[in-house]
Amino acid sequence: MSVRTPDPDPDWTPGPEGAPPPGTNQGWLSDVELAEVRRRLPILYIEAVPVRVDGLGQVVEVGVLLRARSTGEMTRMLVSGRVLYGETLRDALFRHLEKDLGPMAFPQLPPSPVPFMVAEYFPMPGITAFTDDRQHAVSMAYVVPVTGTCDPRQDALELTWMTPREAASDAVAAEMEGGRGALLRMALASVGQLR
Amino acid sequence: MSVRTPDPDPDWTPGPEGAPPPGTNQGWLSDVELAEVRRRLPILYIEAVPVRVDGLGQVVEVGVLLRARSTGEMTRMLVSGRVLYGETLRDALFRHLEKDLGPMAFPQLPPSPVPFMVAEYFPMPGITAFTDDRQHAVSMAYVVPVTGTCDPRQDALELTWMTPREAASDAVAAEMEGGRGALLRMALASVGQLR
Amino acid sequence: MSVRTPDPDPDWTPGPEGAPPPGTNQGWLSDVELAEVRRRLPILYIEAVPVRVDGLGQVVEVGVLLRARSTGEMTRMLVSGRVLYGETLRDALFRHLEKDLGPMAFPQLPPSPVPFMVAEYFPMPGITAFTDDRQHAVSMAYVVPVTGTCDPRQDALELTWMTPREAASDAVAAEMEGGRGALLRMALASVGQLR
Amino acid sequence: MSVRTPDPDPDWTPGPEGAPPPGTNQGWLSDVELAEVRRRLPILYIEAVPVRVDGLGQVVEVGVLLRARSTGEMTRMLVSGRVLYGETLRDALFRHLEKDLGPMAFPQLPPSPVPFMVAEYFPMPGITAFTDDRQHAVSMAYVVPVTGTCDPRQDALELTWMTPREAASDAVAAEMEGGRGALLRMALASVGQLR
Repeated sequence: MSVRTPDPDPDWTPGPEGAPPPGTNQGWLSDVELAEVRRRLPILYIEAVPVRVDGLGQVVEVGVLLRARSTGEMTRMLVSGRVLYGETLRDALFRHLEKDLGPMAFPQLPPSPVPFMVAEYFPMPGITAFTDDRQHAVSMAYVVPVTGTCDPRQDALELTWMTPREAASDAVAAEMEGGRGALLRMALASVGQLR
Repeated sequence: MSVRTPDPDPDWTPGPEGAPPPGTNQGWLSDVELAEVRRRLPILYIEAVPVRVDGLGQVVEVGVLLRARSTGEMTRMLVSGRVLYGETLRDALFRHLEKDLGPMAFPQLPPSPVPFMVAEYFPMPGITAFTDDRQHAVSMAYVVPVTGTCDPRQDALELTWMTPREAASDAVAAEMEGGRGALLRMALASVGQLR
Repeated sequence: MSVRTPDPDPDWTPGPEGAPPPGTNQGWLSDVELAEVRRRLPILYIEAVPVRVDGLGQVVEVGVLLRARSTGEMTRMLVSGRVLYGETLRDALFRHLEKDLGPMAFPQLPPSPVPFMVAEYFPMPGITAFTDDRQHAVSMAYVVPVTGTCDPRQDALELTWMTPREAASDAVAAEMEGGRGALLRMALASVGQLR
Repeated sequence: MSVRTPDPDPDWTPGPEGAPPPGTNQGWLSDVELAEVRRRLPILYIEAVPVRVDGLGQVVEVGVLLRARSTGEMTRMLVSGRVLYGETLRDALFRHLEKDLGPMAFPQLPPSPVPFMVAEYFPMPGITAFTDDRQHAVSMAYVVPVTGTCDPRQDALELTWMTPREAASDAVAAEMEGGRGALLRMALASVGQLR
């Protein structure tokens, strides 16, 4: 994989044909280049909170990813990844949902491209609620109903379904990195499910 | 029908059992009462713009209802109706979608209860973009993807699917009552599909 | 006051001239009529969360009203009130902000009429996060920056300014009625100030 | 200017002290570097539609910039510019508003960081409504009330105030580049002022 995807970003999984997404070649960055550019420009991300809805569209469950870090520590995550050169936000959203939830999740992407929140991540804490020690990232965050079966494809990932109340708890927030517990609460608030 | 549904509002269709929706009995109004209350209070409505989306959630078609008025004139409409006492906005939205599009439309109600626009209808023109000579109505308007087959159930109704460009045209706006052409354009704008 | 305001709703304060707002006469309801209509129709409300913003528009403080109930108990409230017949949402929002914060608060009403949340209050708990034992109320809720001096005009009202963190605390939520603690958190989430 | 601002992007004007904004040094790009990065990554922008509001917050006028191009052709523009490394969206929004409207415009930045629209600009037409032959840009667009005096500071810029109806006209859209006429209409729709 290192030959074909010099971009060390864990955001991308090759398609069946092993090729980068069409039209994105120009934007391919080597590890060194990406590390360099991350100190020079804000990097655009999407994030998604997968949810289950009832027959009236109301959110009844929230999906949170669990990942084992190389240190052995477990952290909770949202679906997340970089927007590549030449890629629309919808393409990026779909690609990362498929990467993190598998091909049978059947996500229903929202008709509007307006996110419920724009999360600004800075290397230095205190500027916003969100931090990322690798970079200055600006992330468009969406709530996305999924109707199929979620089967996290990457190593050491598991998807846990929670009630809105659990998802908004301090316990869950404490297990999320970079302030994403706050983002998850904002997601719940945006759909009227924060108590 | 007059015995069972004294409410002359065309918003409601009896279910198979011919009974009012559960929990709404108290709110049942006779014709005279409704006419009276319409001169005293703003009346709460929902409106829905049915859409078809592609695999990435992008709106590709917009559904507009066509109705023959008693004068023989044809007018275009959105899905629309009153919110009853004891009824949630979601319940009202689902009920009116089913009433106007039939039971096989399979609407995907939005996870968020926040409308793309709040349309304020007044009997006198000039206050807002919207008028309704019967009443002061305040309408929560939503864009709703439908995935099934639409089969308008009420007499003289037909659903026409249009491209976003057609739906935003002056020709369509001219056929809509009460300023709803503007509301339709705002719906398209909210999903990034207004040119 | 009973002579001038037959409407027992605490939402309205007579202007200097003691007259109802222009154009709303038709909608005037006696105590009995209002009590009656409250059991028949959802009643439209506005709610506002007054905030102080810094030079970049960021929310730094949140205003919460404190009221002594006739029982001696203190409860916290948001700016809130009914929308009258013939009154726009903006007019209602401005009128209730002036009523609760005084004439020198100089609120900056939002350019968009779309609320950050639509709160649905029902007499029976469990349907939504919000309850109101008097009625089924549907409330359009807004965050409103105020730039002047707030001087609550009604008896037994005081405005307390809090940090976003305090305003989102369980202690404050416990002092708010009808689930408005959740609404306050949603307000903070909508402006990116919920942790 | 070439010495102080190696970034050829017209987005930035040196402050009184001629120094780059604090904390953004790392992100400084030479002309060559910026040209390079623009072919590799989506570039983050903000855009703003300046408006005048009445006492109730309703948009009554819309400001559109007029610029003479080097070809002598006149084009209409929105306030627009790049988000620099280390800079918040609010900082970028304020900086570009000041750059394009002068220091006495007194913009009221919105309490919420959520834009009314995310506009995606691609070099190749047909992907979205928006094009930019220099780059793949993703722009967070905001409606911003201004209360002071606007005095465009850059050469050949003038600000024209229009009614919402004029601003939404085909004539104005035809004078805007990259599809920004559509963005302007979406701005008007978001504040309920599109007919």
